[in-house]
Amino acid sequence: MALATPPQERLRAEIEQFYARHMQLLDSGDAEGWARTFTEDGTFALPGRPGPSRGRAELAEGARRAFAGHTAAGETHRHWHGMLDISARDDGTVHVRCYALVVLTPRGGDPRLHRSCVCEDVLVTVGSEWQVRTRCVTRDGA
Amino acid sequence: MALATPPQERLRAEIEQFYARHMQLLDSGDAEGWARTFTEDGTFALPGRPGPSRGRAELAEGARRAFAGHTAAGETHRHWHGMLDISARDDGTVHVRCYALVVLTPRGGDPRLHRSCVCEDVLVTVGSEWQVRTRCVTRDGA
Amino acid sequence: MALATPPQERLRAEIEQFYARHMQLLDSGDAEGWARTFTEDGTFALPGRPGPSRGRAELAEGARRAFAGHTAAGETHRHWHGMLDISARDDGTVHVRCYALVVLTPRGGDPRLHRSCVCEDVLVTVGSEWQVRTRCVTRDGA
Repeated sequence: MALATPPQERLRAEIEQFYARHMQLLDSGDAEGWARTFTEDGTFALPGRPGPSRGRAELAEGARRAFAGHTAAGETHRHWHGMLDISARDDGTVHVRCYALVVLTPRGGDPRLHRSCVCEDVLVTVGSEWQVRTRCVTRDGA
Repeated sequence: MALATPPQERLRAEIEQFYARHMQLLDSGDAEGWARTFTEDGTFALPGRPGPSRGRAELAEGARRAFAGHTAAGETHRHWHGMLDISARDDGTVHVRCYALVVLTPRGGDPRLHRSCVCEDVLVTVGSEWQVRTRCVTRDGA
Repeated sequence: MALATPPQERLRAEIEQFYARHMQLLDSGDAEGWARTFTEDGTFALPGRPGPSRGRAELAEGARRAFAGHTAAGETHRHWHGMLDISARDDGTVHVRCYALVVLTPRGGDPRLHRSCVCEDVLVTVGSEWQVRTRCVTRDGA
């Protein structure tokens, strides 16, 4: 975990780079690579689920299943994070509240907005890498 | 007002953080909090209006009314700013020309693009905070 | 070409500023200005074309024709880049893999997603400016 917080411009650059790779891993179907961007005991709470996914094996399994479903349906999903409100805490964690869009393109068709969400993450550094410790997503319209 | 311009990486990080909080205040219905991210005499010109809104009371009133309307209609609105062309001027102001999307999600429905706009802001620092002095929005398709 | 890579926060700020201006030039119909944000021999490969566009004259011609078509059809197109995965290479080039959306608004109508793409660029500095040396775009759903 970070002991000293980097200046905000460095922090924002690192977080944006982190999310870019994180989402590109997810959207390209690299479920294990994506799961490794969470801490070992990372959690991911989605609406409509009884409880959060916990730990990389479970996170990867969920991502793998979702990607297989999209592939079978001929859909490409792209996750966009934006409007990142980033706050560094004294304990070295970084809290992010941001908006998230999922853009869905069916094979041979036009893209459309599939989901508009709010994503609240607690991020920590492990060695030189950022990882998600907890994620809580709420879905607009639910 | 800023007397010295920070390096561009700091400036961009500050402006992006500013917009993230600014829009999250608006979209969460904190009309007064949002109005305080304008200068005391801040203006906001929207298409189809006789003149710009001016000052925090009027800005807050407009935001409150809009939010009440969305709530009554069961809609969630999310404002996204992107493609920020940021230029610092010698007088300490910062001019931003960027794109803006409004994503609308009806209760129980799928999100859709509600507006695509161009937003031109003049930002100034008051104490350690960025504030909008003037905003001019034009709507695509108008 | 850059001999030393700037720190990541500076690099990201420069690249984001570059893309903002680059896309605003394209969307506002400044085909020549846009073409000058490529290197002299810059290439742009789009799906469904026999080969890439090459060089500023050809790039400008393509942009001019596209803009004229949109104008004739009463359409406004806005290009959004997001989720920028930026990596600086030892040879001074910068590779970016990012998502791209085209938002289309017909005159008098509502905006919609026209394209969702993945954009892979190789960027270089020429003097103090970033330029695109190669661009390869793939379209979701194709």
